[in-house]
Amino acid sequence: MKPIIAVIGSENAVSKESLDVAEEIGSDVARNDCILLCGGRGGIMEAACRGAKAAGGLTVGILPSLDKKEANEFVDIPLSTGLGYARNSLVVSCADAIISLEGRAGTLSEIGLSLCNNKPVVVVKGSGGVSDFLESGRDELEFGDRIHAADPGKAVDKVLDIIKKLDRQ
Amino acid sequence: MKPIIAVIGSENAVSKESLDVAEEIGSDVARNDCILLCGGRGGIMEAACRGAKAAGGLTVGILPSLDKKEANEFVDIPLSTGLGYARNSLVVSCADAIISLEGRAGTLSEIGLSLCNNKPVVVVKGSGGVSDFLESGRDELEFGDRIHAADPGKAVDKVLDIIKKLDRQ
Amino acid sequence: MKPIIAVIGSENAVSKESLDVAEEIGSDVARNDCILLCGGRGGIMEAACRGAKAAGGLTVGILPSLDKKEANEFVDIPLSTGLGYARNSLVVSCADAIISLEGRAGTLSEIGLSLCNNKPVVVVKGSGGVSDFLESGRDELEFGDRIHAADPGKAVDKVLDIIKKLDRQ
Amino acid sequence: MKPIIAVIGSENAVSKESLDVAEEIGSDVARNDCILLCGGRGGIMEAACRGAKAAGGLTVGILPSLDKKEANEFVDIPLSTGLGYARNSLVVSCADAIISLEGRAGTLSEIGLSLCNNKPVVVVKGSGGVSDFLESGRDELEFGDRIHAADPGKAVDKVLDIIKKLDRQ
Repeated sequence: MKPIIAVIGSENAVSKESLDVAEEIGSDVARNDCILLCGGRGGIMEAACRGAKAAGGLTVGILPSLDKKEANEFVDIPLSTGLGYARNSLVVSCADAIISLEGRAGTLSEIGLSLCNNKPVVVVKGSGGVSDFLESGRDELEFGDRIHAADPGKAVDKVLDIIKKLDRQ
Repeated sequence: MKPIIAVIGSENAVSKESLDVAEEIGSDVARNDCILLCGGRGGIMEAACRGAKAAGGLTVGILPSLDKKEANEFVDIPLSTGLGYARNSLVVSCADAIISLEGRAGTLSEIGLSLCNNKPVVVVKGSGGVSDFLESGRDELEFGDRIHAADPGKAVDKVLDIIKKLDRQ
Repeated sequence: MKPIIAVIGSENAVSKESLDVAEEIGSDVARNDCILLCGGRGGIMEAACRGAKAAGGLTVGILPSLDKKEANEFVDIPLSTGLGYARNSLVVSCADAIISLEGRAGTLSEIGLSLCNNKPVVVVKGSGGVSDFLESGRDELEFGDRIHAADPGKAVDKVLDIIKKLDRQ
Repeated sequence: MKPIIAVIGSENAVSKESLDVAEEIGSDVARNDCILLCGGRGGIMEAACRGAKAAGGLTVGILPSLDKKEANEFVDIPLSTGLGYARNSLVVSCADAIISLEGRAGTLSEIGLSLCNNKPVVVVKGSGGVSDFLESGRDELEFGDRIHAADPGKAVDKVLDIIKKLDRQ
């Protein structure tokens, strides 16, 4: 089974720089023969899917509504849950690891749920939002073993290293 | 976006005949360029996935536990929800239409949830279990517009016809 | 802890007779010092809550939307889940036992989920809908150990007997 | 309908001081004729329930497992969801407002989900954990309109003020 990597981050008001990083990460996910999972909507999610598709990958979007048309156009498998924000829990439970950029309330909930489920989170350094904020407090909050940090171009490598180590355990 | 077709039915104590039918239906789903969705476990689910993979298709399994290793070996995308039986609601909400064979309690809940969500259900005639039982009562229960019946070799054709009609509406 | 008894059945187009039965059952639930749980909306749910409140009981409604104003006026504790029909799974998982009258798609899904979770279901004899239909097939479908039947005035007694037996196990 | 106030915070390794604060808050919730909602387990949740019961209140616990025996002894209505950590979404969606003390991963996810659902969160100042950490970043993260802060003895007053203002809108 191919590893499933979730990319999380804001839907709206995302900087051009973060969108570019998300697209590059999506491509890296696909080039490493992993499945890209996300919340299926716009912003960071769409950029990551675009990158994955450009690199020939497979993309899955776990949607809040019952209407699969809400998925961005780069989602291969739109999953219309009808669970609203409760679907955030699935975005992380279905992934082997999570890459987080920027982000606001939704991303905050997803990082929290990742930590609950012992899913490793790699924060893209310097991306801002709740990602950087939580990374800055990971030692104080005793999340040091589950929240990691990586430069944009190294995020997928970092995730793959962590997954390999977990598989060996 | 490719249509997503869910195949539902029992995990345990399934007849050889039903497994063969499920495998054929899985192949038909794949040959018609649709994605096969199911609960990801054994029995009817595994047979349908086996058929879809043999025909070069893509398979998604929405699992009850948090452990993706519970998926059968023919699932490409195992989604570990941790929701227990509440995941039954996702098996049907994420599908465009449902094909049902045999079945017991889980299948019963999935047909009920399909009807709640106005998702068309095609029952495989003569497969027994809750599928045939509910089909026998579809007029009495006023489910005639949502529960359909088809011979085993015609189930996927029937589903595709129904999806096309719904798309035109 | 007080036993929690769920009453399930249709929201719309319910006969006056069934509403009267549901109200009586709600009263019986309260008089036996049990908590009444339901889907929180109209029809059978509202009638059962009305009966429970008239008898001084406590009522809990597990709602599909995020708006607690959708609860009927006899719900003491409206729980706004935002899960849509997926909330049906909670109506039965949170109950010790279920009483079912009449019913259509939602009730069908709830009986299926009750059987999945090994929760006893007492069908009110003669109430029609999916309740009577499933009761008629309980032996054929091998649900005989989990689907029970009772006359309207005996439904709560039957449920309490079953809960007592389960507690002794 | 009585307001429903959720109290969130850690289950394990909670300071005596935080437990005392949680108990006082639980009492304040009950004395103000509100329903206390929580995750139903130990630590902060149990302390809040104990306080509410001592003041004659009503307590609801939304549990992760299917076993209602996992509830602490001060929960009147144990709701066994079987949803695992996905139940965190219900703890906040079912509340009118949230009071947060200390906390780790679970609390983090619940604050995130509160913000997603536009539910006001009152952080108990000086309680530490993710509560204080997020409060310290509320302006930087643009959560200033939804994350509030209050001294321990003022938390319930603060919540009631916020609920009143929201009702007027």
